[in-house]
Amino acid sequence: MKISIIGVGLIGGSMALKLREKGMASFIYGIDKDKQHIIEALDLKIIDAEATLEDGIKNSDLVIIAIPVDAARKVLPGVLDLVSDHQTVMDAGSTKAGIVGAVKNHPNRERFVAFHPMWGTENSGPKSAIAESFAGKAGVICNKEESATDALYTVEKVVNALDMHMIYMNAEDHDIHTAYISHISHITSYALANTVLEKEREEETIFQLASSGFSSTVRLAKSHPEMWVPIFKQNKENVLDVLNEHITQLRKFKSALEKENYEYLQELISNANKIRGILDK
Amino acid sequence: MKISIIGVGLIGGSMALKLREKGMASFIYGIDKDKQHIIEALDLKIIDAEATLEDGIKNSDLVIIAIPVDAARKVLPGVLDLVSDHQTVMDAGSTKAGIVGAVKNHPNRERFVAFHPMWGTENSGPKSAIAESFAGKAGVICNKEESATDALYTVEKVVNALDMHMIYMNAEDHDIHTAYISHISHITSYALANTVLEKEREEETIFQLASSGFSSTVRLAKSHPEMWVPIFKQNKENVLDVLNEHITQLRKFKSALEKENYEYLQELISNANKIRGILDK
Repeated sequence: MKISIIGVGLIGGSMALKLREKGMASFIYGIDKDKQHIIEALDLKIIDAEATLEDGIKNSDLVIIAIPVDAARKVLPGVLDLVSDHQTVMDAGSTKAGIVGAVKNHPNRERFVAFHPMWGTENSGPKSAIAESFAGKAGVICNKEESATDALYTVEKVVNALDMHMIYMNAEDHDIHTAYISHISHITSYALANTVLEKEREEETIFQLASSGFSSTVRLAKSHPEMWVPIFKQNKENVLDVLNEHITQLRKFKSALEKENYEYLQELISNANKIRGILDK
Repeated sequence: MKISIIGVGLIGGSMALKLREKGMASFIYGIDKDKQHIIEALDLKIIDAEATLEDGIKNSDLVIIAIPVDAARKVLPGVLDLVSDHQTVMDAGSTKAGIVGAVKNHPNRERFVAFHPMWGTENSGPKSAIAESFAGKAGVICNKEESATDALYTVEKVVNALDMHMIYMNAEDHDIHTAYISHISHITSYALANTVLEKEREEETIFQLASSGFSSTVRLAKSHPEMWVPIFKQNKENVLDVLNEHITQLRKFKSALEKENYEYLQELISNANKIRGILDK
């Protein structure tokens, strides 16, 4: 299968590496407005050749859009304009209602499969790409009833090749769940980094003392705004809901401490401990 | 050197394993009111024998107190009552001003060295102990001028044997820094877990979708209240300071989203990204 990847960064690059390893990709075109990414992706054998959007699409069985969600939403209608009914288009974005809405009435809508691989790191660019990144993680396909059977089948083969476990979901539900499970984690991590940077002026001390707990909590705060501002923008309502709840929860800790109500503090922590039972299933 | 470890859990057990491996411990007594911990610690060869507090101390060159910070503060004066001037006592607690203050005027104060290894996991008990856990992390010694030279020397040998990099610090400064670098991370993680548990009723969905980002942010929320309530209690003022700042920082994200001020959101995230430069030095 010939594949075009629009955006040969962390996600597009990782998908390319794995699909090639699994023998699913006979030839991979890279499409990226960042020429440095193209050079690196060629060098790392992530892609076989650079292509223009038009040429890449014309010569591919599968087109993977792996760029920030606002750009993906903009580019998708034009991509669908160019495909015929033996070609499949998939995205890899972290929000789904927006992109699905953008092509709802497109004549080629059914050639598109909305996809979100629940994996990422705080790094970006082709050099960060890792073939094994997706293994064991959730691969979410949204609104599958809006896709043609054969297009869906192609994407399901891709998800299997990535060694992900497949989940089907409505795009609106997806965006609610990811607000809780992914988007709020990033906001708390950013806010935590800003808290430390605001109050802890002694950078050397942060560096010297930083424990594994701190590093794991602020790891996400290294994630780039180019990717995350569009996600928060597209999922604004859900993210605000969860953020409000999170501030409410933090205020409970504040209140317990201020009132020296350590029984209540114990309760709050014991309740939080329940996450162990859910995550360690 | 004969060593008594009061509290053979995650920290005490990990120290025992490493000190034995490095040939620093010729015999290790375990003192723990939890009999199951003693059985496990004997079984895992973390300790050589159980002892009462009195017998353990009498027969040891070094006494390591590795129990929750409130219990450590209570037990330390009695331990110091029992030691002579060729014995050393150290603790391993996450707050330091309280314990140092509790023995400020004790006649044997200089036999005690206040210590905090900047490592931990969300797990507890001897079964969670890992010999290599401390390697490369910060080992903080507080108020070293209040300890006898030979006692300090003994603890410095321990810190070196644990392969930690040594930092000397005033107890008050330590508690301010750890509020930023460790304690607030735990509160945000607990609050995040409670947010998700409050709003996301579909446990199966949390489990299925949970990404690596989510797991790393809520990992600390698995940490037990037995350890953490006393830490927050002893470091209440500093933790409240940081928590207030953290809520302020979160409100900035809320405001940026509510006002759809995406330039401001971009700025907040770009600022948070600076943590990369500090952590990845």
